[in-house]
Amino acid sequence: MRFATIDFNGEPRAAIDFQSHYRVTPFGDLSQALRAFDGDVMALADITEFESVEAADATLLATTKTPNKIICLGLNFTDHVAEMRHDRPPFPTLFAKYPLTLTDPFAPIIKPTISNAMDWEVEIGVVIGKAARNVSEAQALDHVAGYTVVNDVSFRDYQNRTSQFLQGKIFEATTPVGPHMVTRDEVDDANDLAMTLSVDGEIMQQGRSSQMIFSIAETIAYVSQILTLEPGDLLSMGTPSGVGAGRDPQRFLQPGELMESSVEGIGALANRIVGPGSPMS
Amino acid sequence: MRFATIDFNGEPRAAIDFQSHYRVTPFGDLSQALRAFDGDVMALADITEFESVEAADATLLATTKTPNKIICLGLNFTDHVAEMRHDRPPFPTLFAKYPLTLTDPFAPIIKPTISNAMDWEVEIGVVIGKAARNVSEAQALDHVAGYTVVNDVSFRDYQNRTSQFLQGKIFEATTPVGPHMVTRDEVDDANDLAMTLSVDGEIMQQGRSSQMIFSIAETIAYVSQILTLEPGDLLSMGTPSGVGAGRDPQRFLQPGELMESSVEGIGALANRIVGPGSPMS
Repeated sequence: MRFATIDFNGEPRAAIDFQSHYRVTPFGDLSQALRAFDGDVMALADITEFESVEAADATLLATTKTPNKIICLGLNFTDHVAEMRHDRPPFPTLFAKYPLTLTDPFAPIIKPTISNAMDWEVEIGVVIGKAARNVSEAQALDHVAGYTVVNDVSFRDYQNRTSQFLQGKIFEATTPVGPHMVTRDEVDDANDLAMTLSVDGEIMQQGRSSQMIFSIAETIAYVSQILTLEPGDLLSMGTPSGVGAGRDPQRFLQPGELMESSVEGIGALANRIVGPGSPMS
Repeated sequence: MRFATIDFNGEPRAAIDFQSHYRVTPFGDLSQALRAFDGDVMALADITEFESVEAADATLLATTKTPNKIICLGLNFTDHVAEMRHDRPPFPTLFAKYPLTLTDPFAPIIKPTISNAMDWEVEIGVVIGKAARNVSEAQALDHVAGYTVVNDVSFRDYQNRTSQFLQGKIFEATTPVGPHMVTRDEVDDANDLAMTLSVDGEIMQQGRSSQMIFSIAETIAYVSQILTLEPGDLLSMGTPSGVGAGRDPQRFLQPGELMESSVEGIGALANRIVGPGSPMS
């Protein structure tokens, strides 16, 4: 099953994708919907009160804009660790984003004037279903509602100003997420999917999630020892090699460029970079 | 004026402190109340529908449990930077916490079995009032609703597992916040307040917020260039020297110990450390 968050008369609403049309729920996004159903994504499919929107008329929004937690993995792909000249980490490297950092799957993204090192990172997003606390690796995937695509757009100059990545990872409305959430039962093995990022059609990243150092189940089990993963929380699993900061010479995003991020079987984002004075911004 | 979040028939509610009694609002905590009034804390005082609770009967809860963002400063006190053997940073070092990490001002705090390096950090908490985006340092304090006390309890073993502090800063229900929020007009200069932390009555930290490298206004102005600070967001301004990890020999919190954190004119937290099997846990 595929879920999305779509525009409904100017308001975001979680919706179920029936190919020809979307069944629109009363919830403002998928995280709100999952919280209302204690993370039971299949129960969400059973709701009896809904509106319909034709697929052709649907504007797809960020699958989630209200996760209680966004937890991202850094340095989680063997080849990306090498290009960033880091050692292979013995533990998952975790950092946060904020809800306001998220944006829609096809939204233009403003290049802030204060950063000159705007970079891409295609990632697999994991949306938590049922709450997870102290779960084993074997149980962990039972707590996944589904998968989505995240582009962890990063501002390397800010990321490297201090020891902590956070400030380079949280610029407002710069992390697109979507366009759908594909439920776990429809994905054979999220730990082995092709991932691609292109800029103006030129392929920059081409990896597979099999290169992940910490799997999705390992990460959920690890984090759940620290605090409860709640329905609608978003994990972003890290990126393969090919980021702009790792290239020689380095290359960063400029206004006018089109950035496309895709994960096999999950979906694709397409975001135009715009200047702060652009009519699209 | 002083605000708090108190227990009202088993539910948390934002409330106004009238010394003899609390005026109880319909909002679940101060962040929810501030969001409902676009951050106008004084408008919140004017609401006409409320319940009353006698001060003697009030149980004080975390001033906020639902901030959209918790942004913490690391290495922000000159003497703490020295004890942690870091260089004085040219930019604010920012990291996040999650709402689920927060707990009540007098709650017992469970020492997790997986960490053996549970440490204290008394801090000034800044609750954002009106939204702040690209504000100047001169305007920044107009966006502060008030101040509260935060103990940024940190798990040094997890904090140092990777380059990113996050996982050592987010253990569930380990960061007490409260017991009141004192509005900005009642605090002469939040950048010059005495701060104290004791364990079983022994003073461990005794500093002044005048030692902060980045002031509250500088921090708000800086972050507001990156993303909007929203009503009810919580900033935690960093800690002075005297943390357990900086002592020789190092000293970490053990079950049974009572940790008291106070900021002059703002308030004091008192939290007993308990083991995971404790009847209080």
